[in-house]
Amino acid sequence: MAYRETEKVRARKETIKLRLFKAAEELISEAGFKGASVAAIAARAGVATGTVYRYFPDKSALCAEVFRHVTQREVDQVAASLNTPGGIDDRLRLAIATFARRALRGRRLAYALIAEPVDPVLDQERLNYRQAYAELFSQTIAEGVNSAALRPQNPKVSGAALVGALAESLIGPLAEQIKSYVPGLSSDMQPPITADHPIIIDIAEFCINAVGPIPKR
Amino acid sequence: MAYRETEKVRARKETIKLRLFKAAEELISEAGFKGASVAAIAARAGVATGTVYRYFPDKSALCAEVFRHVTQREVDQVAASLNTPGGIDDRLRLAIATFARRALRGRRLAYALIAEPVDPVLDQERLNYRQAYAELFSQTIAEGVNSAALRPQNPKVSGAALVGALAESLIGPLAEQIKSYVPGLSSDMQPPITADHPIIIDIAEFCINAVGPIPKR
Repeated sequence: MAYRETEKVRARKETIKLRLFKAAEELISEAGFKGASVAAIAARAGVATGTVYRYFPDKSALCAEVFRHVTQREVDQVAASLNTPGGIDDRLRLAIATFARRALRGRRLAYALIAEPVDPVLDQERLNYRQAYAELFSQTIAEGVNSAALRPQNPKVSGAALVGALAESLIGPLAEQIKSYVPGLSSDMQPPITADHPIIIDIAEFCINAVGPIPKR
Repeated sequence: MAYRETEKVRARKETIKLRLFKAAEELISEAGFKGASVAAIAARAGVATGTVYRYFPDKSALCAEVFRHVTQREVDQVAASLNTPGGIDDRLRLAIATFARRALRGRRLAYALIAEPVDPVLDQERLNYRQAYAELFSQTIAEGVNSAALRPQNPKVSGAALVGALAESLIGPLAEQIKSYVPGLSSDMQPPITADHPIIIDIAEFCINAVGPIPKR
């Protein structure tokens, strides 16, 4: 019996943790990290405020875990794009479009992850996830340099630069789009942004030129 | 007499404020924003901790003013580089080298300004100063597009992307360099980094390729 109870308690704890996660992600998607107070997260998840503190020491710790969870999903998408079959520049173009399109569709959440002024704990998470992207892009750039598909360059420098270019150029459009965001409407219901949206083409053009594909003879 | 006293008080207040600024900048240059506590700033400036609060409501407000002051100096240097006579790509190259060289020479201070996890007040200052750089680069890029010296592109997107590339690619090298930083030695005494340092050439090459100078016929 003791064993069964433990299992039951563990499952219940897991359920509540997932509800807190979901509530936090929803609130961040609606109003950024500043909208995700412990009280608001608790209310959205249908638990008492005090319950949150049984799972996370404070708002920062909860938000940091949500940050890691959400960005891992995004990093995985970019990794998948970079690992499709095809030429280096096509794969880079696809990865850039994937990142930008998902950011522009997620708007408020993407702005929160990329640019919203946050506390040092989340700033550190931001450094980590940009590093993860940089490593992915660096690998593909190194592959391109080795196969002479891209000009000679330092893949580590170019990978980081590409991530910086991608993130920074989206901050303005995301901030603009947040103004036209319809609250209460899920991301999927917001006007769709396709891979050929002008801003995405502009960013991809900048990045692809930067790493310099060498034309095939 | 009353008038003279007021003048004297005002001058004295101005002196203390400048000393606090100088102390804060020194501490940030040595150990980042996390090293610039109100107590440490007061001690370095030779005033009581309580005195600091007569000039600034809190550490954030003081650090934000130092941030603005220091970054304005950097923005001015980049603006001057962009406004030298010469071709668009030479001016962009000079501005990129100026930013990178000054950052790498200032190391700890540059890392604090660009990447150190900080509180939301300083994150907001960071957004503002990146915006200032982006506008400068956008102007020069627009000029280049209009004169057909650069490929057709959206100067606003490219200006922001260029600043992102520049800042992000420096984070790794700055973090590395901080490890070899000699504490107590002023920035000028640290091993010099010249405009032809490999990392600066790599970053400049990425950025110049990105905006795509059109070869003169």
